Amino acid sequence: MSDKRYCLGLDFGTNSVRALIADAENGQTVAIAVAEYRRGERGVLEDRSNSHIARQHPADYYDGLVASVQQVVEAARSTAKFLPVDIIGIGIDTTGSTPIPVDEQGVPLAFDPRFEDNLDAMAWLWKDHSSIAEAERITELAQQHRPEYLKQCGGTYSAEWFFSKIWHCLNVASNVFEAAYSWVEFCDYVPALLTGTLQPDEMKRSICAAGHKAMYSEEWGGLPDADFLNLLDVRMGALRERLYKQAYASDVRAGDLSEEWAQKLGLPAGIPVAVGSLDAHYGAVGAGVREGTVVKIIGTSTCDITVAGAREGPPHIPGVCGVVQDSVLPGYYGIEAGQSAVGDIFNWWVTEICEGDSEQHEVLTKQASELAPGESGLLALDWNNGNRTILVDARLSGLLIGQTLQTTRAEVYRALIEATAFGGLTILVTCGGIAEKNPMLMQIYADVTGRRMELSRSEQTCALGAAIFGAVVAGEDRGGYATAEQAQEAMTGTKVTSYEPNAADHEVYQELYGLYRRLHDSFGVAEHSDCLYDVMKRLLEMKHKVSTQ
Amino acid sequence: MSDKRYCLGLDFGTNSVRALIADAENGQTVAIAVAEYRRGERGVLEDRSNSHIARQHPADYYDGLVASVQQVVEAARSTAKFLPVDIIGIGIDTTGSTPIPVDEQGVPLAFDPRFEDNLDAMAWLWKDHSSIAEAERITELAQQHRPEYLKQCGGTYSAEWFFSKIWHCLNVASNVFEAAYSWVEFCDYVPALLTGTLQPDEMKRSICAAGHKAMYSEEWGGLPDADFLNLLDVRMGALRERLYKQAYASDVRAGDLSEEWAQKLGLPAGIPVAVGSLDAHYGAVGAGVREGTVVKIIGTSTCDITVAGAREGPPHIPGVCGVVQDSVLPGYYGIEAGQSAVGDIFNWWVTEICEGDSEQHEVLTKQASELAPGESGLLALDWNNGNRTILVDARLSGLLIGQTLQTTRAEVYRALIEATAFGGLTILVTCGGIAEKNPMLMQIYADVTGRRMELSRSEQTCALGAAIFGAVVAGEDRGGYATAEQAQEAMTGTKVTSYEPNAADHEVYQELYGLYRRLHDSFGVAEHSDCLYDVMKRLLEMKHKVSTQ
Repeated sequence: MSDKRYCLGLDFGTNSVRALIADAENGQTVAIAVAEYRRGERGVLEDRSNSHIARQHPADYYDGLVASVQQVVEAARSTAKFLPVDIIGIGIDTTGSTPIPVDEQGVPLAFDPRFEDNLDAMAWLWKDHSSIAEAERITELAQQHRPEYLKQCGGTYSAEWFFSKIWHCLNVASNVFEAAYSWVEFCDYVPALLTGTLQPDEMKRSICAAGHKAMYSEEWGGLPDADFLNLLDVRMGALRERLYKQAYASDVRAGDLSEEWAQKLGLPAGIPVAVGSLDAHYGAVGAGVREGTVVKIIGTSTCDITVAGAREGPPHIPGVCGVVQDSVLPGYYGIEAGQSAVGDIFNWWVTEICEGDSEQHEVLTKQASELAPGESGLLALDWNNGNRTILVDARLSGLLIGQTLQTTRAEVYRALIEATAFGGLTILVTCGGIAEKNPMLMQIYADVTGRRMELSRSEQTCALGAAIFGAVVAGEDRGGYATAEQAQEAMTGTKVTSYEPNAADHEVYQELYGLYRRLHDSFGVAEHSDCLYDVMKRLLEMKHKVSTQ
Repeated sequence: MSDKRYCLGLDFGTNSVRALIADAENGQTVAIAVAEYRRGERGVLEDRSNSHIARQHPADYYDGLVASVQQVVEAARSTAKFLPVDIIGIGIDTTGSTPIPVDEQGVPLAFDPRFEDNLDAMAWLWKDHSSIAEAERITELAQQHRPEYLKQCGGTYSAEWFFSKIWHCLNVASNVFEAAYSWVEFCDYVPALLTGTLQPDEMKRSICAAGHKAMYSEEWGGLPDADFLNLLDVRMGALRERLYKQAYASDVRAGDLSEEWAQKLGLPAGIPVAVGSLDAHYGAVGAGVREGTVVKIIGTSTCDITVAGAREGPPHIPGVCGVVQDSVLPGYYGIEAGQSAVGDIFNWWVTEICEGDSEQHEVLTKQASELAPGESGLLALDWNNGNRTILVDARLSGLLIGQTLQTTRAEVYRALIEATAFGGLTILVTCGGIAEKNPMLMQIYADVTGRRMELSRSEQTCALGAAIFGAVVAGEDRGGYATAEQAQEAMTGTKVTSYEPNAADHEVYQELYGLYRRLHDSFGVAEHSDCLYDVMKRLLEMKHKVSTQ
């Protein structure tokens, strides 16, 4: 064993899994590997007859796990004096809420030949929106009977979350529901797989997923009580016993790397593995989230995360979709908001409408960079995948207004970026794949918000967050850290390059944002009436003014 | 001279000129030729810094005239016992209001080397929208001082029309205005060119263009009086004397084909040429318009035309944008409504956004045909070029609502077609290029309106309408007709194929149309307030319902 210490962070995203080996001393990347999911549409199993459906086969997780870790270990070996024995801890994050129906041994039903082609037996990916009706009913029932449940999730239970999905499965595929002994979150499944604790009653569940997605709180004794779940369906009430009683923060060990998996991955057995978490929350940790700093993770969707000290009790902030103790940093309330689609909207425009690829992204970015704010006369709502923050409503859709017979692809592309900027005005630190790749987007975000935008030093904040918790569960004795804050202090930072707002552009964007808010409220807020007669006219006036300057 | 009699119809469209030789006995096409305009973007001179600008160089008209007539005569010679001496009359229609600044001899300023590159000295194409401010001011002044002027043009004077454009030229390019002795409509220019009557005081002006676009009426002594025009600008008042005192219906001869032009075109001199008209109005004539029948001409834009007997005085119909005596058929009130962009919207989607060509139109049509009404969850407003009917407002723009991350090109294409169908619900007989080429569009129009759609027998109704007036000015003695009705009776008809509405689809479209009207009124009607919260939700419900049927 050398004097170096490393952590392995695994970040399971929507389309791929990323493995990162970080230097435990300073957080620097030693090696990174990415394994794409191979099934469906970039890993997503869709149903053309129902655009709400988005599932994944757990075999993609299994294959991606093996491939990415083998590759990252090989890469680390070739570039540094790295030895697998120097890995002191492993952390894992995944998308979520992505519940998976499993049998009594914790094996996903998707691996059972009876269900191998059954979409309902797959992992129900976070962005699956088929459970809208169930989510609405859960919200109604909670409003009537358990208002406290809704307080920690922004007042509305989402179609993207745990119980909506499980109940929808019961309603549309009762054979799958009946065959499932339990349901496990993706972020609980992977640590359990690695540590040989798959058996559902043994598996250590993430408080992040439990609290943000499954209405779990110690305040009311864990998950929603059986009486409440019986209001949904008595079979949902009966399921409660087969879920879990206790959830854990990520400074807790899920277990140690099993012999079986140590061999598969080429690592020594016994490395401590942290309790899993949702990707965005680890991304915030990897970007250095702390009190007073909001981290915005920009990817296919966007997640805004911050933390608040636990001493004053849970904060109540309108528009926030989740407030859960210990969910980001142990000892703090984790606070979450976000946008249901950001990169996904740009990808939709480029891939589906323009039939282009990453090169087309570059072309449109270049052309869109040459436009001034307001010049296109366009305004969009960023709701192609519903709205997660403030409105918390999946039954919303996209809107584009202001197009003429001359409107170009690049103008629409820019309007979609601006829409996502309007959609999330409170940003301080930014991480995520898109922020890295697109300076135009960062400048627009700075101009829209009127705030300086900083980039996380790491380009892999989620995986780094996972690695950080690997270092935490390793503990000081093994060369790790006693607390997540200490690990963050050593292992995170921001880049030198930042984006300053341009005052003139900010002024134009304030006017555009006023129009955005009116469309937002008109289509998104119940019983909100407005006279929208002037909207197109003001957009055309702004366009004319900017064009003739 | 044989016993056959032929008429020549010339139809100057937005992108090309079409020449038709028709059998005067039955209206059958003998030969047809098309000459594309060569300058700018398919004949349209644009200014990227101001999307409102759309101009044309009169040289395109001149070149297109020579080329199309030479070609059609050659084609007629080769396919029948046709001889040029058997042409008994010539009729001409053009786009409009497309005013052209000319010198004292009636020669367009664009031919003067001083102005050859000056967009403001070109023909101001019908769809040029740069004169919005002037149109609004004319409307205001007429409301205050001459309300009668507005009655015959639907209550609002348009940015697309004669005086708005001339006044705007004065305001932005006074050197061009000062250099212009007079302004002539495109549809007056071509007959004058052919008959050697270019001199502005000699030229016979079209009552169709004068009445629908220039507030001309015998009721108030012709054009708006000088006192009124002085309210715009004293130089506008002074211009009145150099415009015209009298306008004529198309059963009047503009003159006879001059020796010079007879030689250029390969025709005998002396053939009578009818006073010109706007293309849509001749299209209605060529499709057999009569009392009780509305003709819809579907092209880059759409025009709905019908006629009403003159005995009861002018009819007052809300949403109609023009009622002018003798403008379609002499002895009747011509009634006009229409949509500012129809084919142009589909072309924008295919050309600008999808970067495709006519093949892409076919691909999208095929894919869109497979969709059921409501299945896409999309709804659009057809205002990419403003709104000409009911709202008469150029300061409107396009809107698309309901897009998800799965929305396809073909779904948007269909939504745009549906939007144009919603935009014009009162249709009985249809002609125009798009109607011929796209049975899906015809079926959607039938399903949206719940009415049977018939197609004009001729595929070139505008040119046929022009040929019909050629036969009228020829007169009975030369083998033509005494009246336009008699010529129509002999020379027009509808096709056997018609499109019947499907009851189930009509029902879905009635629901969609309800939502369309709410968006229409919300963005288009001053002081109209609505709560639009349910719109996206109802579209998603319809989509879900249709998808799961």
